[in-house]
Amino acid sequence: MKNNLFKGIIAYPITPFDKDEKVDIELYKTLLERLIVSGSHAVAPLGSTGVMPYLTDEEKEAIIIATIDQVKGRVPVLVGVSNLTTEKTIYHAKFAEKAGANAVMIIPMSYWKLTDDEIVAHFTAVANQISIPIMAYNNPATGGVDMSPALLKRLLEIPNITMIKESTGDVQRMHYLRRELGDDVAFYNGSNPLALAAFSAGASGWCTAAPNLIPKLNLDLYDAIQNNDLDEAQKVFYKQLNLLKFIVNKGLPRAIKAGLEIQGIKGGFLRSPLKPLTESEIAEFKLILKEVE
Amino acid sequence: MKNNLFKGIIAYPITPFDKDEKVDIELYKTLLERLIVSGSHAVAPLGSTGVMPYLTDEEKEAIIIATIDQVKGRVPVLVGVSNLTTEKTIYHAKFAEKAGANAVMIIPMSYWKLTDDEIVAHFTAVANQISIPIMAYNNPATGGVDMSPALLKRLLEIPNITMIKESTGDVQRMHYLRRELGDDVAFYNGSNPLALAAFSAGASGWCTAAPNLIPKLNLDLYDAIQNNDLDEAQKVFYKQLNLLKFIVNKGLPRAIKAGLEIQGIKGGFLRSPLKPLTESEIAEFKLILKEVE
Amino acid sequence: MKNNLFKGIIAYPITPFDKDEKVDIELYKTLLERLIVSGSHAVAPLGSTGVMPYLTDEEKEAIIIATIDQVKGRVPVLVGVSNLTTEKTIYHAKFAEKAGANAVMIIPMSYWKLTDDEIVAHFTAVANQISIPIMAYNNPATGGVDMSPALLKRLLEIPNITMIKESTGDVQRMHYLRRELGDDVAFYNGSNPLALAAFSAGASGWCTAAPNLIPKLNLDLYDAIQNNDLDEAQKVFYKQLNLLKFIVNKGLPRAIKAGLEIQGIKGGFLRSPLKPLTESEIAEFKLILKEVE
Amino acid sequence: MKNNLFKGIIAYPITPFDKDEKVDIELYKTLLERLIVSGSHAVAPLGSTGVMPYLTDEEKEAIIIATIDQVKGRVPVLVGVSNLTTEKTIYHAKFAEKAGANAVMIIPMSYWKLTDDEIVAHFTAVANQISIPIMAYNNPATGGVDMSPALLKRLLEIPNITMIKESTGDVQRMHYLRRELGDDVAFYNGSNPLALAAFSAGASGWCTAAPNLIPKLNLDLYDAIQNNDLDEAQKVFYKQLNLLKFIVNKGLPRAIKAGLEIQGIKGGFLRSPLKPLTESEIAEFKLILKEVE
Repeated sequence: MKNNLFKGIIAYPITPFDKDEKVDIELYKTLLERLIVSGSHAVAPLGSTGVMPYLTDEEKEAIIIATIDQVKGRVPVLVGVSNLTTEKTIYHAKFAEKAGANAVMIIPMSYWKLTDDEIVAHFTAVANQISIPIMAYNNPATGGVDMSPALLKRLLEIPNITMIKESTGDVQRMHYLRRELGDDVAFYNGSNPLALAAFSAGASGWCTAAPNLIPKLNLDLYDAIQNNDLDEAQKVFYKQLNLLKFIVNKGLPRAIKAGLEIQGIKGGFLRSPLKPLTESEIAEFKLILKEVE
Repeated sequence: MKNNLFKGIIAYPITPFDKDEKVDIELYKTLLERLIVSGSHAVAPLGSTGVMPYLTDEEKEAIIIATIDQVKGRVPVLVGVSNLTTEKTIYHAKFAEKAGANAVMIIPMSYWKLTDDEIVAHFTAVANQISIPIMAYNNPATGGVDMSPALLKRLLEIPNITMIKESTGDVQRMHYLRRELGDDVAFYNGSNPLALAAFSAGASGWCTAAPNLIPKLNLDLYDAIQNNDLDEAQKVFYKQLNLLKFIVNKGLPRAIKAGLEIQGIKGGFLRSPLKPLTESEIAEFKLILKEVE
Repeated sequence: MKNNLFKGIIAYPITPFDKDEKVDIELYKTLLERLIVSGSHAVAPLGSTGVMPYLTDEEKEAIIIATIDQVKGRVPVLVGVSNLTTEKTIYHAKFAEKAGANAVMIIPMSYWKLTDDEIVAHFTAVANQISIPIMAYNNPATGGVDMSPALLKRLLEIPNITMIKESTGDVQRMHYLRRELGDDVAFYNGSNPLALAAFSAGASGWCTAAPNLIPKLNLDLYDAIQNNDLDEAQKVFYKQLNLLKFIVNKGLPRAIKAGLEIQGIKGGFLRSPLKPLTESEIAEFKLILKEVE
Repeated sequence: MKNNLFKGIIAYPITPFDKDEKVDIELYKTLLERLIVSGSHAVAPLGSTGVMPYLTDEEKEAIIIATIDQVKGRVPVLVGVSNLTTEKTIYHAKFAEKAGANAVMIIPMSYWKLTDDEIVAHFTAVANQISIPIMAYNNPATGGVDMSPALLKRLLEIPNITMIKESTGDVQRMHYLRRELGDDVAFYNGSNPLALAAFSAGASGWCTAAPNLIPKLNLDLYDAIQNNDLDEAQKVFYKQLNLLKFIVNKGLPRAIKAGLEIQGIKGGFLRSPLKPLTESEIAEFKLILKEVE
């Protein structure tokens, strides 16, 4: 396998705001520290959970610096640097590399549907400007473009694109990647309710916001898989499935904030147009969190 | 769990025709015998693979009698009795029970999309007329109606509906069934490319036409799961995945006939409008069959 | 344009049953007569509205004979003869021709998804056995296969396939047909809520069950289009749109039966698994029927 | 009808770049002038065609100022001010109003799928800060969220939201709007291939990039509709349909640039990741443009 640092549970921190909807860096660091000490194998700031597209360039840079500063090399750091234009994506990727990130994650955000050639040119332009590895990320639901397995295969010919993250929710995409690419390329699961199916299919890791709320259950699933113990993996997976589905259905930033507060931890404010969960949603979430205690 | 006979590899025989497109009962029996002696845990005539909807009532009855006669109790028999009208479904279910079938499988075939209440009434009417168990089968691609998990749960309240077969290709449906119904109800996988994910999710069995061509690989997958050996299951699954995808993509009756002939076994003729695979499809299939030797 | 008899409002009769779910031929004739005297330009028995797939061969034949007998040449008759197998489709097409039908309508009903070549072979086999024109009918929602515009174009090369009916609900399919085929081929609309858009796009006729309930409004729409009076067409269309959407959403056989009974006309019984509308649906339908009085 | 300035052909200018991918304001003004003098009834800068999401705040402001300056009140100006966050949307809407725009257009751009309540709060917050009318724009393909007709109805209760633009490509959405809202609200078509169906359904205007290439044909369609001459409208529509489909399929900014250059007019450069049409696409486009000469 192309050598890579990332495996196991890769945790997404949220980006919390203060009551004036400014990024709250101190609270961010506190929440990030929780992910590290509770055992996540890596952290991935500025993903969807971190509402990256809602942040200004300056805010993104502050988050990157705060992350590197807080992590202090204890776990690898994967930074989201996606942007609509190629120029801006290069800008953020270079910033992340210089700040000390171990890798960057790029989803081809699209407004106008991009052709395969445009996507390859976009990734190539970025890859040429940095030396750290790139995780190509496929998530049509948020990025607006669905990269076919054939296109992902093309992207992997670019030397420092060494990881693929699949969030389509279709386990057969992972089958294809494994079958076509063998053990040469690590693929990661980004769809929470597919965690068991993805690990069964051979995924190297699971990128997830769930460790903000249930880090032990997430780690237990990975351990069971590492121990080749499917019975245990199944048991642990079904225990957390209701929670995984709930946080996906409600939107990760909204759901994680609510879950933290139910657990008695400060989750900060959201940036508009995002709004907190309703009272009835919070009541439902309390029951789900009780199930997994 | 509600007691049931069916687990492991449940094999679908094809219904072969002679050159005048009449059902070839002798060839049917020969092909059925191959499934039994190669180790399938059960057989399921008159499914999609057996082109049940293309047969007359008399032809269906001849297939049922031939099956019971050939199997001689060596493995359990699950007979497809689906029909557009309730009256005809009852007729075929009663025939199957009287002939000695161990259970029947029913998909709510629809021309006009049926409401949930219509589907429940349809299943109830059939269930009231027979004593053997019923497997409710969900496959929107062939049946034309997609039964929601909530509807499947309603059907399971009917006493002799004890098994669910899911062929939507969405592993999350199986997660729902397992989580909602616990160990009380057996669920089965009918989507070949999902075999590994379904067993990982806890499926009791895999209904498949693949044992016509690769019985040992199918059984090896089930054995690995029984042995709680995920690594081995993964290895065996990826070995057969290309073949599983090919036979699904080309249509099971057409693909199995072609595969049998590549293996030097008589597969009979198809009934129009179904036509044999093209020469280039057969050439591709030969390569895929070579991979799994 | 290839000469054809069919234009304007082509009305679908329902197939009514008695309380034992046997076809009620006398009531069928009564309802058919209503369609003729209220001005429909043609009638089309044994369509989806006529629950053709739920009928035995003998019942279909009785309906064909009753139709020819009742119509007595006053309007052209288009008979549905679709069947899963090619042999049966030929059988019914020949019966319809011999009985005096002016044309037959064929949808490639599929259980196994048919390839384009299989569909062309199916239509060719039928077309070779009859001399009357064929309307090729595309309706993925009931037939299970979606014929691409390119495939429809191929079918039109068969000499007696002279008409296309589109029921996908996508007006752009009609644009394609008109643009590709010019005035050589008549295309028909089978999607009730698209009636205005389809006539605006150049459709020759509208195949619809609505004349069972609102014949004058249906004819008024066609007349406005014939008079090149878009303002009037728009007005008439919006008047009937709620009703058109309601009968489609509830299923035509169920909705037409209910609508007839609200209007004080005997609609007969349905064949299981189809069930009558619920009381609340009937209450809603009464309001909609009042709007168009 | 709530009074509004916009009707007929509302033309989208492209945003051209120079070879260093900087916005070329001089070329923008030249291309905008062409739209005005060729008869468009209104212009709409900073829409999808104008690659608004790819521009910085400063670039958007320069485009707004250049537009007002060039138009000099000859036609009404509708400015796109959509943004992911509420705060930024308000900022751009206020800028547009102050600069002299007649109305603003807002699509609820989403990264995280927004709830209906979040969308209503977003529009309300913007509407409270400006006095000019707002066109609410529904285009799931670019904006990532599909506003239901019921949600659009809710938005119309906000006083200065007076116009709806529908770009789903489903004419039935327009039927719903007209039926539910009567003549109180103007709705606009944003789907080029639906131009005829939308005008037939009662659309007040057509927002389109096509006048950059074929202004006369666009105006002729509107005139035929105004003259209640469906036959002529149909003829004119089918003449331009191939071109409308081509520019949509290739992406409007890429296609309009290519079309201008085929017509001998400078179209500028694109901003990466967008790339020019390929040579074979340009060759195809030349044939299509010849058809409409």
